[in-house]
Amino acid sequence: AKSDDDTDGITICELSAHRKVTVRSFKGKVFVDIREFYNKDGKELPGKKGISLSIDQWEVLRDNIEEIDRAVKESD
Amino acid sequence: AKSDDDTDGITICELSAHRKVTVRSFKGKVFVDIREFYNKDGKELPGKKGISLSIDQWEVLRDNIEEIDRAVKESD
Repeated sequence: AKSDDDTDGITICELSAHRKVTVRSFKGKVFVDIREFYNKDGKELPGKKGISLSIDQWEVLRDNIEEIDRAVKESD
Repeated sequence: AKSDDDTDGITICELSAHRKVTVRSFKGKVFVDIREFYNKDGKELPGKKGISLSIDQWEVLRDNIEEIDRAVKESD
Protein backbone atom coordinates (compact mmCIF):
# COMPACT_ATOMS: atom_id res chain seq x y z
CA ALA A 1 0.00 0.00 0.00
CA LYS A 2 1.35 3.42 -0.89
CA SER A 3 1.98 5.74 2.01
CA ASP A 4 3.60 9.13 2.40
CA ASP A 5 4.55 8.32 5.95
CA ASP A 6 8.20 7.78 6.64
CA THR A 7 8.85 4.49 8.35
CA ASP A 8 11.72 2.78 10.06
CA GLY A 9 11.10 0.00 7.60
CA ILE A 10 11.22 -3.71 8.04
CA THR A 11 14.34 -5.72 8.55
CA ILE A 12 14.62 -8.47 5.95
CA CYS A 13 17.88 -10.00 7.10
CA GLU A 14 20.98 -9.39 9.18
CA LEU A 15 24.22 -9.65 7.22
CA SER A 16 26.23 -9.57 10.44
CA ALA A 17 25.71 -8.53 14.06
CA HIS A 18 25.36 -4.86 13.09
CA ARG A 19 24.54 -4.91 9.41
CA LYS A 20 21.00 -5.17 8.16
CA VAL A 21 19.02 -5.07 4.98
CA THR A 22 15.83 -3.10 5.51
CA VAL A 23 13.05 -2.08 3.16
CA ARG A 24 11.55 1.26 4.02
CA SER A 25 9.39 4.04 2.67
CA PHE A 26 10.57 7.62 2.57
CA LYS A 27 8.47 10.41 1.11
CA GLY A 28 6.31 7.89 -0.66
CA LYS A 29 9.21 6.03 -2.27
CA VAL A 30 10.52 2.62 -1.36
CA PHE A 31 14.20 2.00 -0.67
CA VAL A 32 16.34 -1.03 0.02
CA ASP A 33 18.84 0.01 2.65
CA ILE A 34 22.01 -2.02 3.23
CA ARG A 35 23.50 -0.47 6.32
CA GLU A 36 25.49 -0.72 9.51
CA PHE A 37 23.70 0.04 12.78
CA TYR A 38 25.04 1.03 16.15
CA ASN A 39 23.67 0.70 19.62
CA LYS A 40 22.76 3.81 21.60
CA ASP A 41 20.95 3.55 24.91
CA GLY A 42 19.68 0.12 23.95
CA LYS A 43 18.37 1.30 20.59
CA GLU A 44 19.70 0.20 17.22
CA LEU A 45 20.29 3.30 15.13
CA PRO A 46 21.34 3.51 11.48
CA GLY A 47 24.98 4.51 11.00
CA LYS A 48 26.74 6.36 8.20
CA LYS A 49 28.19 3.26 6.58
CA GLY A 50 25.75 1.92 4.07
CA ILE A 51 23.80 2.69 0.95
CA SER A 52 20.14 3.22 0.27
CA LEU A 53 18.99 1.89 -3.10
CA SER A 54 15.99 3.12 -5.07
CA ILE A 55 13.76 0.44 -6.55
CA ASP A 56 15.39 0.92 -9.97
CA GLN A 57 18.83 0.46 -8.45
CA TRP A 58 17.69 -2.53 -6.42
CA GLU A 59 16.35 -4.18 -9.57
CA VAL A 60 19.69 -3.79 -11.34
CA LEU A 61 21.43 -5.39 -8.35
CA ARG A 62 18.85 -8.18 -8.21
CA ASP A 63 19.21 -8.89 -11.92
CA ASN A 64 22.98 -9.19 -11.56
CA ILE A 65 23.08 -11.55 -8.56
CA GLU A 66 24.35 -14.50 -10.54
CA GLU A 67 27.04 -12.49 -12.25
CA ILE A 68 28.22 -11.06 -8.91
CA ASP A 69 28.21 -14.53 -7.41
CA ARG A 70 30.29 -15.87 -10.28
CA ALA A 71 32.84 -13.06 -9.89
CA VAL A 72 33.05 -13.72 -6.13
CA LYS A 73 33.76 -17.40 -6.71
CA GLU A 74 36.32 -16.69 -9.41
CA SER A 75 38.10 -14.15 -7.19
CA ASP A 76 38.22 -16.38 -4.13
CA ALA B 1 43.00 -17.59 -7.91
CA LYS B 2 43.94 -16.32 -4.47
CA SER B 3 46.11 -13.25 -4.37
CA ASP B 4 47.35 -10.96 -1.64
CA ASP B 5 47.48 -8.07 -4.04
CA ASP B 6 44.94 -5.32 -3.55
CA THR B 7 43.01 -4.62 -6.70
CA ASP B 8 40.60 -1.99 -7.92
CA GLY B 9 38.33 -4.89 -8.62
CA ILE B 10 36.00 -5.53 -11.49
CA THR B 11 32.78 -3.69 -12.09
CA ILE B 12 29.88 -6.09 -12.36
CA CYS B 13 27.12 -3.58 -12.97
CA GLU B 14 26.19 0.08 -12.67
CA LEU B 15 23.16 0.73 -10.51
CA SER B 16 23.02 4.34 -11.68
CA ALA B 17 25.36 6.85 -13.32
CA HIS B 18 27.64 6.95 -10.27
CA ARG B 19 26.80 3.79 -8.36
CA LYS B 20 28.54 0.54 -9.06
CA VAL B 21 28.79 -2.98 -7.78
CA THR B 22 32.39 -4.14 -7.85
CA VAL B 23 34.07 -7.33 -6.71
CA ARG B 24 37.56 -6.78 -5.39
CA SER B 25 40.33 -8.37 -3.40
CA PHE B 26 41.82 -6.68 -0.37
CA LYS B 27 44.51 -8.32 1.74
CA GLY B 28 43.67 -11.67 0.26
CA LYS B 29 39.96 -11.43 0.95
CA VAL B 30 37.18 -10.88 -1.55
CA PHE B 31 34.56 -8.17 -1.08
CA VAL B 32 31.42 -7.12 -2.86
CA ASP B 33 31.36 -3.35 -2.83
CA ILE B 34 28.15 -1.44 -3.47
CA ARG B 35 29.27 2.15 -3.70
CA GLU B 36 28.94 5.64 -5.09
CA PHE B 37 31.81 6.99 -7.20
CA TYR B 38 32.78 10.52 -8.05
CA ASN B 39 34.75 11.98 -10.88
CA LYS B 40 38.08 13.65 -10.20
CA ASP B 41 40.34 14.74 -13.03
CA GLY B 42 38.61 12.31 -15.36
CA LYS B 43 39.02 9.39 -12.96
CA GLU B 44 36.19 7.57 -11.22
CA LEU B 45 37.07 7.32 -7.54
CA PRO B 46 35.19 5.47 -4.79
CA GLY B 47 33.23 7.79 -2.48
CA LYS B 48 32.24 7.46 1.15
CA LYS B 49 28.68 6.42 0.47
CA GLY B 50 28.52 2.67 0.16
CA ILE B 51 29.20 -0.58 1.89
CA SER B 52 31.74 -3.30 1.35
CA LEU B 53 30.43 -6.80 2.05
CA SER B 54 32.51 -9.81 3.02
CA ILE B 55 31.72 -13.05 1.22
CA ASP B 56 29.71 -14.27 4.22
CA GLN B 57 27.66 -11.08 4.22
CA TRP B 58 27.23 -11.21 0.46
CA GLU B 59 25.91 -14.77 0.71
CA VAL B 60 23.28 -13.74 3.27
CA LEU B 61 22.16 -10.94 0.95
CA ARG B 62 22.11 -13.28 -2.04
CA ASP B 63 20.06 -15.88 -0.17
CA ASN B 64 17.48 -13.23 0.75
CA ILE B 65 16.98 -11.71 -2.69
CA GLU B 66 13.49 -13.09 -3.12
CA GLU B 67 12.39 -11.99 0.31
CA ILE B 68 13.73 -8.48 -0.27
CA ASP B 69 12.03 -8.37 -3.64
CA ARG B 70 8.74 -9.42 -2.09
CA ALA B 71 8.99 -6.71 0.57
CA VAL B 72 9.77 -4.09 -2.09
CA LYS B 73 6.69 -5.06 -4.08
CA GLU B 74 4.48 -5.12 -1.02
CA SER B 75 5.74 -1.69 0.07
CA ASP B 76 5.31 -0.05 -3.33
